[in-house]
Amino acid sequence: MKPLVSIIMGSTSDLPVMEKAFKLLDEMQVPFEVNALSAHRTPDAVEEFARTAKDRGIKVIIAGAGMAAALPGVIAASTTLPVIGVPIKGMLDGLDAMLSIIQMPPGIPVATVGVNGAQNAAILACEMMALADQELAQRLAVYKGNLRIKIEKANEELAAIKYQFKTN
Amino acid sequence: MKPLVSIIMGSTSDLPVMEKAFKLLDEMQVPFEVNALSAHRTPDAVEEFARTAKDRGIKVIIAGAGMAAALPGVIAASTTLPVIGVPIKGMLDGLDAMLSIIQMPPGIPVATVGVNGAQNAAILACEMMALADQELAQRLAVYKGNLRIKIEKANEELAAIKYQFKTN
Amino acid sequence: MKPLVSIIMGSTSDLPVMEKAFKLLDEMQVPFEVNALSAHRTPDAVEEFARTAKDRGIKVIIAGAGMAAALPGVIAASTTLPVIGVPIKGMLDGLDAMLSIIQMPPGIPVATVGVNGAQNAAILACEMMALADQELAQRLAVYKGNLRIKIEKANEELAAIKYQFKTN
Amino acid sequence: MKPLVSIIMGSTSDLPVMEKAFKLLDEMQVPFEVNALSAHRTPDAVEEFARTAKDRGIKVIIAGAGMAAALPGVIAASTTLPVIGVPIKGMLDGLDAMLSIIQMPPGIPVATVGVNGAQNAAILACEMMALADQELAQRLAVYKGNLRIKIEKANEELAAIKYQFKTN
Amino acid sequence: MKPLVSIIMGSTSDLPVMEKAFKLLDEMQVPFEVNALSAHRTPDAVEEFARTAKDRGIKVIIAGAGMAAALPGVIAASTTLPVIGVPIKGMLDGLDAMLSIIQMPPGIPVATVGVNGAQNAAILACEMMALADQELAQRLAVYKGNLRIKIEKANEELAAIKYQFKTN
Amino acid sequence: MKPLVSIIMGSTSDLPVMEKAFKLLDEMQVPFEVNALSAHRTPDAVEEFARTAKDRGIKVIIAGAGMAAALPGVIAASTTLPVIGVPIKGMLDGLDAMLSIIQMPPGIPVATVGVNGAQNAAILACEMMALADQELAQRLAVYKGNLRIKIEKANEELAAIKYQFKTN
Amino acid sequence: MKPLVSIIMGSTSDLPVMEKAFKLLDEMQVPFEVNALSAHRTPDAVEEFARTAKDRGIKVIIAGAGMAAALPGVIAASTTLPVIGVPIKGMLDGLDAMLSIIQMPPGIPVATVGVNGAQNAAILACEMMALADQELAQRLAVYKGNLRIKIEKANEELAAIKYQFKTN
Amino acid sequence: MKPLVSIIMGSTSDLPVMEKAFKLLDEMQVPFEVNALSAHRTPDAVEEFARTAKDRGIKVIIAGAGMAAALPGVIAASTTLPVIGVPIKGMLDGLDAMLSIIQMPPGIPVATVGVNGAQNAAILACEMMALADQELAQRLAVYKGNLRIKIEKANEELAAIKYQFKTN
Repeated sequence: MKPLVSIIMGSTSDLPVMEKAFKLLDEMQVPFEVNALSAHRTPDAVEEFARTAKDRGIKVIIAGAGMAAALPGVIAASTTLPVIGVPIKGMLDGLDAMLSIIQMPPGIPVATVGVNGAQNAAILACEMMALADQELAQRLAVYKGNLRIKIEKANEELAAIKYQFKTN
Repeated sequence: MKPLVSIIMGSTSDLPVMEKAFKLLDEMQVPFEVNALSAHRTPDAVEEFARTAKDRGIKVIIAGAGMAAALPGVIAASTTLPVIGVPIKGMLDGLDAMLSIIQMPPGIPVATVGVNGAQNAAILACEMMALADQELAQRLAVYKGNLRIKIEKANEELAAIKYQFKTN
Repeated sequence: MKPLVSIIMGSTSDLPVMEKAFKLLDEMQVPFEVNALSAHRTPDAVEEFARTAKDRGIKVIIAGAGMAAALPGVIAASTTLPVIGVPIKGMLDGLDAMLSIIQMPPGIPVATVGVNGAQNAAILACEMMALADQELAQRLAVYKGNLRIKIEKANEELAAIKYQFKTN
Repeated sequence: MKPLVSIIMGSTSDLPVMEKAFKLLDEMQVPFEVNALSAHRTPDAVEEFARTAKDRGIKVIIAGAGMAAALPGVIAASTTLPVIGVPIKGMLDGLDAMLSIIQMPPGIPVATVGVNGAQNAAILACEMMALADQELAQRLAVYKGNLRIKIEKANEELAAIKYQFKTN
Repeated sequence: MKPLVSIIMGSTSDLPVMEKAFKLLDEMQVPFEVNALSAHRTPDAVEEFARTAKDRGIKVIIAGAGMAAALPGVIAASTTLPVIGVPIKGMLDGLDAMLSIIQMPPGIPVATVGVNGAQNAAILACEMMALADQELAQRLAVYKGNLRIKIEKANEELAAIKYQFKTN
Repeated sequence: MKPLVSIIMGSTSDLPVMEKAFKLLDEMQVPFEVNALSAHRTPDAVEEFARTAKDRGIKVIIAGAGMAAALPGVIAASTTLPVIGVPIKGMLDGLDAMLSIIQMPPGIPVATVGVNGAQNAAILACEMMALADQELAQRLAVYKGNLRIKIEKANEELAAIKYQFKTN
Repeated sequence: MKPLVSIIMGSTSDLPVMEKAFKLLDEMQVPFEVNALSAHRTPDAVEEFARTAKDRGIKVIIAGAGMAAALPGVIAASTTLPVIGVPIKGMLDGLDAMLSIIQMPPGIPVATVGVNGAQNAAILACEMMALADQELAQRLAVYKGNLRIKIEKANEELAAIKYQFKTN
Repeated sequence: MKPLVSIIMGSTSDLPVMEKAFKLLDEMQVPFEVNALSAHRTPDAVEEFARTAKDRGIKVIIAGAGMAAALPGVIAASTTLPVIGVPIKGMLDGLDAMLSIIQMPPGIPVATVGVNGAQNAAILACEMMALADQELAQRLAVYKGNLRIKIEKANEELAAIKYQFKTN
C-alpha cells in the first residue's frame, strides 16, 4: 500500500522513541514510510523530500529530532502538508529540542507534541486524515474509548488496594 | 456559511493574541466561529462543546490559553477532531502555558504551536483541511510563496543599507 | 467508615508516590478513598466525581498528576471543596507538572504542594479538617512534635560523629 | 468581629498584590487581620505569631513573600493551622519565591498558589473554613457561579466581534 | 571591494541588533555583504547561498536568528566555511534561540556568541581571518588595547566619585 | 583613612547597582575604595590587584559583574582574602551572572549574594570584619535592630489600612 | 578545643555532602561543631542557636539545606555573625535550594556557595577567620599553592597522553 | 610537528569529553597540544599561555570547562587568536557552563559550541584554519561528505525495518 504518513528521523538512534509512532499507525491501519534525513547532514535531501512529498501521496509528515532540532521546521518550509514535530530528549530534559521545534516564525507552523511523544504524533496524524476518512475516524473513536476502559480498570485495581488500610 | 474552524479562548483578554488567527482564516476564506470557554470556569460547557463539535461540522479546533492552560487538553479529551493549542504569554515568557499544553499523556495529543502563535495555529488548521480541499491547498501555496517575496524585498532594502559603509 | 478524603491519581503508575498520602492519613485515622481518574481520558467521570464529592461527605480532595497536569484544576472547577494538587515528577524535575497545577486562573485555586509531596498533601488535608475536629488537631500536634524528636535524635548521632576529628 | 483569617506579608511593598485577598475575604464576609512580619527581620515575632494564632481564634493563615520566601514555611513550622503561601513576583517571574515556598520538607506543608495569586489564596481559605460553615459554603457556590456568568458574557461579546469578518 | 564576510539575518527586524556587526567590520576595514534569508521562508536560497559562498570569496558567515533559530545551522550544513551564530532575543531572554543555534549535532558546528552579540560575532570573524592577514591582526590588537584604555578611564571616573563619601 | 574594603566593578554601568554598597559601608563607617577592573579587558590588572590587595591592608573584596561574570572568581584565584560576588542583572534575570559566579570549583570559593545584592554584600563584608572589630559589631547589631523597627512601623501602617474593610 | 565554626544541617541525610567541610576544617586545624537543626521542625532551637552562637565563641556559621532551604536565612536573621549557605542538590539540580538561600532581602545576607559546595564553604569560613589569624592565613596560602601543584601534575599526565596521537 | 591547535582543559576529569577533539584533529592531520590550566587555580599560567600562544605558532585555542567556566573567556582576554569554548556538563545539564562561556562582554568573544561538543570544537578549529589551507579544506569537505553517507546508510537500515509492519 502507498504510504500516507511519512516518518522522518535524524538518525537511527531516535528509533526507540519513534517506533511508538509505527505501532500506533499500524494499529490504525495507516500505511506509512520511515526515513532518516538530517537538516544538517543531508539538507538538499530534506528539501527534495519536503517538496515532493505531497505529489507522492503523503498526507502528513512526522519529524522527530533532538538538540538543535531544525528538521521539522526545515521540512515545513518546503511543503504545505501539515508537519508534526517530536522533540527528542537530550539536554535539559528535551527543552532544547522543544524550543527549537515549536518557536517557528509566522507563516511556517510545526504542530509540536510533548517530549518523546511519537505515539501522540501518530494519533494527531490520524486525527488530521480522519477529517476525510470516516473509517479511520471510527477506529480513532474506538481507540479513545479504550483509553477510558484502561483507566476504569486501574480504578478497580485501586479499589482492591485501598482495603488494606485499617481506617477504611 | 457554516464554520469549519472553532476558535476557543479562555477570556476576552486573549483576544489581541487570538485575532491573528481570525485574520489568517479570513484571508484563506475559511469560515470560523469564536467562543470563550474555560476549562476551569465552564467545564461542562467545554465538554459539551468538544463532544458535539464534530457533528456540527467543525473540522479543527484552535484553543488559546495561558498559565495553567488546561483548555486545549480538556477539549482534546472529548473529541477525535485535531486540537491545536496556543500557549498565551503570561509567566515565564509563556513557558508555563507551553508545558501545560504540550506535555499531554499518551493517547490525547494537542498540536502545540509557539507562544502567542495564533497565526501559525490558523495556518496549521488550513494545512489539515487542505488535505481534502484542493482550493484551500492552492491558497496556502500562494500564501507561502508570498512569504518568500516578502523576504526577497527585505533583501533589497538591506542591499540599499549596506552601501552606507565605507569599506564596501 | 465513610471516607473524608478522596485521593485521585491519573494512573496506577502514580501509586508509589501517592501511597505516602495513604500512610499518613491512616496514621491520622482519617478514612479515605482512592480513585484513578483522568482529566484527559475520563473527563466526564472527573466532572461527575467533582460535582458530587461534597454530597458524598468528602471534605478534601487530593489529586496527583504529572506532565500537563490538568486533573487538580479540572476537579477544582466543579467543586467548592478544597483541592490539593501533587505535581508528580516527569520532565524538568516535575516543573512541568508544578506549573500546570499551580498557575490557576483567578477564582479556581488549587493548593499545590512540592514535587511528589503526597505526604505533605495528606498533612495539609488533615490541617484543614482539624479546623472542626479537635481530636484530629490533637493528633496533628503530636505528629509535629515527633518531627522535632526525630531531628533531636539526628543531633545526637551527629554529636557522636564529630568526635572522630582530631581538632575537636 | 474577631478575625478568622490572618494575612501576613513581609513588607508594605507587597500590599498591592495582597490587597486582592482583602477584597475577596470582604466579599465573602470573612473577618480578617493584616500584619507585616518577616522571617528574616522579626523571626521571634513570626514564631510567636504562629504559635499563638490558633488560640486567638485564627483558622487559616495566608502568607505572601518574594525572593527567598521563607515566611510561609517558617510560620507553618510553629502551627497546625493550614498555611497558604503566595509567591510574590520578583526575580525569574517569581519562580524563586515559588520554589522557596512550595518545596517544603516532609511534615510541614505549605498550600502554595500561583505567582501573585492572593485572590486565589483567599478563596482557598474560604473553601477550608466552609468545611464547617454552611453559609460560607453557600457564598462560595454563588461566587463560582458568577465566574461562569462572566465567561458567558465574554462569549456574547465575542459573538458580536466575529461578525466583522467577511467569510463568516 | 569584494566582501569577505557575509552577514545573514532572517528579517529586517533583526537589523538593529545586527548593525553592531556592520560597524565593527567597517572599523576593522573588512568588506562585507548583508542579506536577508530565512531557513523557513527561502530554504533553497539559503542552501544555494551556503553552497556557493566559498567560491564567491566569502571567508566567514555571520547568521543572526531568533526563536526556533534554524538559519545558522542550516547554512553550516552546506559549507565548510566557519559559521558564527547570533541568537537574537525573543522569548525566554533569547534562550530559545541560543539553544536552537548552539546544540548542533556532531559534525556541523556553529560558533555561537551571546544573545544579541553581533559585535562579538564580527570580532570573532576578524580573529579567524587574521590568522592569514597580518594587518587585520594588527588592527585587532589595537582594538583590544583600546578596551583596556576605556576601562582605565572608567577607573578614573570612579576615583572621582568615591571622594563624595565621608569615611574615605 | 586607609580602605578596608575594595569594591570592584566591570564597568561604570554597574555603578547604580554597586552604589548601595557604598552607602552601607559609609553608614557603618568602614573606609573603602572603588575600582573598575575587568577579567576580560584588563586581566593582568585584575591579577595584580588581587595579589597585592592583602598587603595594601584590604580585608574584604566585593566584586560585581554581569553576564559571563568571571571577575569575582578570577580575583578569588589570586588572593586568600574573602571575595564576595554580586551577580548583576542582565539576561535571564541575572541567572547567567549568578551561575557564573557561584559555581566555583573546589578550593576557590566566592561568597555570592542575590542578584543586584550590593547592599547585602556590604553587610556581609562588615560581618566578616566585625569578627575582630567590636565597634563594628556593635554598629551592625544596631543596624539589624533598625530593620525590626522598620517592619514594626509597616505593621502599624497596615493596622490603619485594615479598618477600611466593612467586615473587620 | 572550643569550636570556632558551627556547621548546621537539616538532617543526617545531608551528612555525605557536609562532611567535605569537616575534612577541610580539620586540615586547616580549625575546631568546629556539628549540629542538626531545622528551620521547619525545630524553629525555636534554630533561633536560640543563632542568638547565642556569638557569645559561645563561634565565629562563622555554615548551614547546608536542600529544597525550600530556609535554614541559612533564618539563622542569619538572629545573628550578626557571617552565615555561609550551602545549597544541597535535590530538585532542579539544586536550583530550588540555591534560589531559596541566595535571594535574601536587603539587610540579611547569606554568603552562598555552589550546589553541594561544602568544601568551599569551609574554605570561605577560614578566609574570614584568617583576617585576624596570621597562622590560619599562612595555612590557607599553602592550601591554595597546593591547588596549583595539583593542576601542574595534571598537565604532566596530559603531556604523556598526547604522544599517543600520530600527528603530534 | 609544531602544534597548530592548543586544547586546554581545567582538569584531567574533563579528558573523556575533550578526547573527541583529539580524535577529530588527528583524523584531519592537524597537530595539536593538550594542556591542563585553570582560570581559578593557575591564573598567571593561563594568562602567560594566552599571551604567548600566537608567537608559538598556535592558530586556534579550544578550551573546555564546566560549572563557573571562566577559562575560555579569560584566555580570550589575552590573545587575538580565536578561542573556542566547550561547556562541560555538570549542573543544570551544562547550562551553567554554557552561560558562563557564551555571555561574554562586547569586545572579547568566545566561539561557543554545544554542551560536551569537543568534536564540533575541533571541526570549527579546522574550518578556521582551512581559510588559509587548501588541503585541510579538502579534508573537511570529504569529512562532511561522509556524514551524508552515514545517514544514507541509516536510511537503508530503516527501509529494512519498516517492512516488519503489516500495513506497509
